Amino acid sequence: MLTASPTAVPADIDQFFTENEPRIRGELFDLLRIPSVSARSEHNEDTARTAEWVARSMRDAGLQATVHRTPGHPIVVGEWRGAGSTAPTVLAYGHYDVQPAEPLELWASPPFEPTIRDGRIYARGSVDDKGQLFLHVKALEALLRTRGALPVNVVLLVEGEEEVGSEHLSSFIEANAQLLRADAVVISDSAMFAPGLPSILSSLRGMAYFQIDVQGPSVDLHSGSYGGAVVNPAMALARILATMHDGSGHVAIEGFYDKVVDWGAAARDEIRALPFDEEHFRVETGSPSLGGEAGFSTLERLWMRPTCEINGLLSGYTGEGAKTVLPSKAMAKVSCRLVPDQDPQEIERLLRAHVERYAPKGVSVTVTHLHGGRPWRANLDGPLFDAARRALAAAFGREPVITGEGGSIPVVGDFQRILGAPVLLMGFGLPGENAHAPNEWMSEENFTRGLRAVAMLYQELAVNG
Amino acid sequence: MLTASPTAVPADIDQFFTENEPRIRGELFDLLRIPSVSARSEHNEDTARTAEWVARSMRDAGLQATVHRTPGHPIVVGEWRGAGSTAPTVLAYGHYDVQPAEPLELWASPPFEPTIRDGRIYARGSVDDKGQLFLHVKALEALLRTRGALPVNVVLLVEGEEEVGSEHLSSFIEANAQLLRADAVVISDSAMFAPGLPSILSSLRGMAYFQIDVQGPSVDLHSGSYGGAVVNPAMALARILATMHDGSGHVAIEGFYDKVVDWGAAARDEIRALPFDEEHFRVETGSPSLGGEAGFSTLERLWMRPTCEINGLLSGYTGEGAKTVLPSKAMAKVSCRLVPDQDPQEIERLLRAHVERYAPKGVSVTVTHLHGGRPWRANLDGPLFDAARRALAAAFGREPVITGEGGSIPVVGDFQRILGAPVLLMGFGLPGENAHAPNEWMSEENFTRGLRAVAMLYQELAVNG
Repeated sequence: MLTASPTAVPADIDQFFTENEPRIRGELFDLLRIPSVSARSEHNEDTARTAEWVARSMRDAGLQATVHRTPGHPIVVGEWRGAGSTAPTVLAYGHYDVQPAEPLELWASPPFEPTIRDGRIYARGSVDDKGQLFLHVKALEALLRTRGALPVNVVLLVEGEEEVGSEHLSSFIEANAQLLRADAVVISDSAMFAPGLPSILSSLRGMAYFQIDVQGPSVDLHSGSYGGAVVNPAMALARILATMHDGSGHVAIEGFYDKVVDWGAAARDEIRALPFDEEHFRVETGSPSLGGEAGFSTLERLWMRPTCEINGLLSGYTGEGAKTVLPSKAMAKVSCRLVPDQDPQEIERLLRAHVERYAPKGVSVTVTHLHGGRPWRANLDGPLFDAARRALAAAFGREPVITGEGGSIPVVGDFQRILGAPVLLMGFGLPGENAHAPNEWMSEENFTRGLRAVAMLYQELAVNG
Repeated sequence: MLTASPTAVPADIDQFFTENEPRIRGELFDLLRIPSVSARSEHNEDTARTAEWVARSMRDAGLQATVHRTPGHPIVVGEWRGAGSTAPTVLAYGHYDVQPAEPLELWASPPFEPTIRDGRIYARGSVDDKGQLFLHVKALEALLRTRGALPVNVVLLVEGEEEVGSEHLSSFIEANAQLLRADAVVISDSAMFAPGLPSILSSLRGMAYFQIDVQGPSVDLHSGSYGGAVVNPAMALARILATMHDGSGHVAIEGFYDKVVDWGAAARDEIRALPFDEEHFRVETGSPSLGGEAGFSTLERLWMRPTCEINGLLSGYTGEGAKTVLPSKAMAKVSCRLVPDQDPQEIERLLRAHVERYAPKGVSVTVTHLHGGRPWRANLDGPLFDAARRALAAAFGREPVITGEGGSIPVVGDFQRILGAPVLLMGFGLPGENAHAPNEWMSEENFTRGLRAVAMLYQELAVNG
């Protein structure tokens, strides 16, 4: 009797949201008004207050809630275990902390006074991630108020340090693996591909980040008195860096692609079918023209192909005008974005070997590994994703698209590794939402549809879980 | 009767210096005690006082002297025109200003209190250039006191801004070309190749200095969200820079060597015969090993071969740790040291064409020319150099060696261009003299022999002029 039609939002749920819409919006605005900026210690009372607010909201929805202290900002855990030990458990993750609002003068309305304009809720944290995390609290409330019970056990895990690196999250998960044990993990902290296009984010690139230091003479030398007879470390560095790609934009580090898994024609067809405006993307970047690895489209380059990029360069004299220095040293920050099944440690080994091979005599070259993270790609065949497809289709009136992401969300790998559960990234942001910029916004329509989609997801998970 | 033996210092001159040695040294020490630091305006009274001191010293020697105001530090001109309008005129150039003495704590004795240790006169300016310019004043005094007249007309041109770029010198020369008209120019502001080895500096490299700016996206982008589909300007820059040399260290800019004049086997033999300790040079630079253009020795690479060097690099994130930025722009300072007959303007044209050819799509590249200067090489066949050879041989008891210099001395080109006279660089410094560092020194022996060499030079010039 719990198997609602996969093609429509159940009437009782829809009616609950319709009737309670003003109250829910009022509560969301209260949440958005607290300046829970995790990066600024002057806001520590605000983050603590937000954690308490979230816990109270969970309790009002019918969950048990606990605020856990950490050495940083608190973690809130909400629980509803009424479905019994044979029912599946779903863990939803979100974060209540927000980015700093500066520069304040660029906001059209105050960042911590939610304002509606043109169908958008403008406020810091509206979409990243208070608005999206609140969808889960309210979806559970709707199910518990209308039906008195949930078909699955639920754990809500809400942290306050996502914008400052989630420093205490993985140790908290490890220390509380029993409490957080789950059969599936859901995260609503990403964006849809386009308005009206519900999206499941299916892949994240990993990372291997290095610093390359080239040491030549022991001090800066006069480029006249020594130039030509002493190997220039900046030129040596440029020559090493130039070996990292071939003329077609392929990474030329030996063995770099050995572990790259082909996504297959179907996945590439799905990417090709997305309504992607290349020229709009180019204009957004301000680049004279786009470019990259030959044989791949822009979205393929971003989502399914690994990269090797220079993130920084420094050597010698960089001020105004001319200084005739032969630099003592040169430095590059170099990072590789990785795709399945590339391994950050293996890439480190390959990059070291490559640099060693191309380092010229006359300088000494050091490679330091700064940090790494594994790539991730969802297996879209399981019941978790079937449930998500049905929920999104019902709430948005069309089948979701499968998207990728060129960046990394380290916590996804942590959940999968520590809890051993599949992770669903089902977000309701939109391109241009200014998540880390002034005038952050969330679409009113996506908030409304998101409530229904998330509620249906919890229903549908019971069917398939 | 003025033709003294070319193999010995005339007895009357030698005796004059021997008898007056304590007085000459006392005067030198007085000159060295004035902190004529041209770079620091708090020493403006000191530089003015030094100019007056130099003028008075010229008058005491028997010359007419005038202190000329400039918008910067004064220029002193000494003249002796008694040889008549048919006799040749020799212009000697020097500078009375000195480098700042800081860091003071590294001086073993106070920088402006001349102190003798181990046969060296330690003081700021001892060798660069007060000590060497003073040789000329005292050499002329010796000739005038012992013989009552000079065989040539003499102009001494002494500036006070050499250490800050000689800003007002070339306009002064141009405005006073008639006053400064000369048949030969002599400069004692360089070093001998080694102790006991009198040297004529026969070449200087020129310069063409550029900044290369590569612009990619209009702002720094997230390397995850955009990396792989947007051309990275730092990588583009590295690839451009790596095209500037081939694998043998030759500059690979098309046409770069077209105007390079071969020095010939004799000049290379002379270089090879110099007592040069490659390992000592390497240790001095602190480089793991020396390197450069294949087919040339270290001294050849420094003196007779042009270079293309990176002087600075800047792009993206250069602080501690990792930041995942795809930089908006990248910058390199690049300079070429030039040899005869390379022309800075032509090199600029060739470098622009090269960069244009190798700049990838997806970025825009700008080349800015920052400054340039022509290379210089003496024609060693004239009477000026014959006179110098004889004077040095007489004073030092051995034939001088011919040396080169990898750096540039812009004023040499100015003299040659404006006055149309050959320039002789005959210096009495020594390697390790700390000209711009703490504990600057001049060899006592070189001061003593230098007095005699310079006096003989003026004598010998009459013979050949």
